[in-house]
Amino acid sequence: MNKVEHIGIAVSDIRIAGGVYEKLLNTTIYKTELVEQEGVETAFLKTGPNKVELLQAIDDNSSIAKFIAKRGEGIHHIAFDVDDIVAEMERLKQEGFVLLSDKPKPGADNKLVCFVHPKSANGVLIELCQSIVG
Amino acid sequence: MNKVEHIGIAVSDIRIAGGVYEKLLNTTIYKTELVEQEGVETAFLKTGPNKVELLQAIDDNSSIAKFIAKRGEGIHHIAFDVDDIVAEMERLKQEGFVLLSDKPKPGADNKLVCFVHPKSANGVLIELCQSIVG
Repeated sequence: MNKVEHIGIAVSDIRIAGGVYEKLLNTTIYKTELVEQEGVETAFLKTGPNKVELLQAIDDNSSIAKFIAKRGEGIHHIAFDVDDIVAEMERLKQEGFVLLSDKPKPGADNKLVCFVHPKSANGVLIELCQSIVG
Repeated sequence: MNKVEHIGIAVSDIRIAGGVYEKLLNTTIYKTELVEQEGVETAFLKTGPNKVELLQAIDDNSSIAKFIAKRGEGIHHIAFDVDDIVAEMERLKQEGFVLLSDKPKPGADNKLVCFVHPKSANGVLIELCQSIVG
C-alpha cells in the first residue's frame, strides 16, 4: 500500500464542518461531490500529498447516518492508495482480512474502492483506493 | 499545515495489532518507543510519506486506556506535520480552536506536539507535530 489517500470524517453539517476544516488546515475545499449510491455528500481538502474527505449523510440509511447516530461526528475511515486494487484485495483475502465487497466499487473522486471490515483491523475501517485513469 | 504525519490507532495488544498492521500495510514495524510520560508503548509503520502509529496503554490512567475503555480499539488521533508549531498554535487560537496545552510538549518520534480539542474539530482529536532538528 502507498500513501494515505484520504481520511474520511463523518460530519452532521458539511457546510459548518467545511468552514471549520478550512480554518484548521488553512486551505480551501477544492471539490465537493454527491455520491448518491452511498447516500453522502462529500467535500475534499488537501494537506500536502494527502486529503481530508468530509462526509455528510443525505439518506438516513447511509453508513454515515448510522455512524453518527451511534458514535457522533468523528473519523469514519482511512483510505490508502493502491496501484492495483484487485491484486491488493486478493493479497488481503489470502492474509485472512475480511473485505466488505467481492469486487471494487466506484467511489468519490474518480476512484475504485473496497473496504476492509473494521473487525479485521483493530476497529479501523480501512478503504483501498485506486485512481481511475482516463 | 503539511502532510498527515501519522494516524494514531489505539490498540489493546500492540504485538498482536503490530502483526495485523504489518500484513495489512505489507510492511514491517520500523520503530517502537516507550513514551512513559504519556503512559503508552508505540510502534510505527510507514505508508509512503505517512506513518501509522499503534498505541498501547501501559498505565490505566493514560488517555489510550480511557479511550479503549470507552470506545474500544480504533483511530485515536490524526497528526499533521507543521513547520513552526508555536506559530501554528497561535494561528489556531486566533481562529477559536481550543488547544489541550499552552506550550508544545515532547512526543514520540522526536517531535514537539500539541493537541487540538476534538470539540473544536467535529469529534476528531488533531495533533500538531513539528520535527525536532538535531
